[in-house]
Amino acid sequence: MRAEFVNPFLVSLLHVMSTMAQLELKAGAPRKKNDELARGDVSGLIGMVGPQTRGSFSITFDKGLALEVMRRMLGEAPASINEEVTDMVGEITNMVTGGAKRMLAEKGYDFDMATPVVVSGPNHTISHKTDSTKLLMPFESEYGRATIEICFE
Amino acid sequence: MRAEFVNPFLVSLLHVMSTMAQLELKAGAPRKKNDELARGDVSGLIGMVGPQTRGSFSITFDKGLALEVMRRMLGEAPASINEEVTDMVGEITNMVTGGAKRMLAEKGYDFDMATPVVVSGPNHTISHKTDSTKLLMPFESEYGRATIEICFE
Repeated sequence: MRAEFVNPFLVSLLHVMSTMAQLELKAGAPRKKNDELARGDVSGLIGMVGPQTRGSFSITFDKGLALEVMRRMLGEAPASINEEVTDMVGEITNMVTGGAKRMLAEKGYDFDMATPVVVSGPNHTISHKTDSTKLLMPFESEYGRATIEICFE
Repeated sequence: MRAEFVNPFLVSLLHVMSTMAQLELKAGAPRKKNDELARGDVSGLIGMVGPQTRGSFSITFDKGLALEVMRRMLGEAPASINEEVTDMVGEITNMVTGGAKRMLAEKGYDFDMATPVVVSGPNHTISHKTDSTKLLMPFESEYGRATIEICFE
C-alpha cells in the first residue's frame, strides 16, 4: 500500500478529533504488521469500493477515550458504551473516511463508501481479511488509545 | 427494504453452511427491529456499494457454532477463536455475500463488495448505522446461534 493512501486517513482523524472534540491525539508510527490486531472496546468499520481498488477501514477506541470524546462533543457522557456512543463512533467513522476520500480524490483515487457498522464489546479485536498489506496506525491520548487500520487491495 | 433484497442472503447462508459444513441451520423469521442488536462471539462484516444503493452485511456466530463449522470443514477445531477461525468467518462472509450478489444481479441489482473484516470478542454487539431499515435474520442450530444483519440505503 502506498504512503499516499495512508496519510489522508491519519490527517483526517487528527482534524476530526481536533475540531469536533478539541482533543489532540498523538500519532504513533504507522506499522505494517500481519500478526498485530487492533484491540479496543468500541470500533467503527466501513467498506470502500472504487474503480481501481477496494478495501476496508476501521477505527477502534478504548472505552475511556470514546467516553471523553462524547463528553467534549455533547457536554456529558454516559457511564458506559451505549447507543449514543456507538452513534458517535459511526459518525466519526463517516467523517474520517469522508475526509480521506476527498483528499484521495484530489490525487486521482476515487472510491465510494459503504455504510458504517459499529462493534461494541470489551477488548474485542478487529482483523481485516485481505491478501494485501494491512496498515495499523496507533494514536495515544491521556484518556486511552485509538487505532486505525486500513487495507486496500 | 424489499423482501427481494433479503432472501438471497438467507438462501446463500443456508447453501454455504450445507455445502461447506454439512450443517443445516434453522432460519427464524426476519425482523425489522431498531432496538435489537446482533450479539455473538465472532462476526464477519462487509460493505456493499452499487449504483442504486449502498449498505452493509454482517454475520455473527456464537463461539460453539463457529468452532463446530471449523470442525466440519477442516476435520478439527481449535479450543477457542483464533486466527484460523476468523479466517474461516471472513471466507464465509465473502461466500454468503458473493452468492447473494449473483442472485441480486440476476434481478438487476448490482453492487460491488468491499473486503471483509472479522471481529472477535465474547458477546460483542453489532450495530449497522444507517437511517434506513435494518433487517435481522436469526438462525438456530444445536451448536449455537448465527445472526445475519443487512441494511441497504
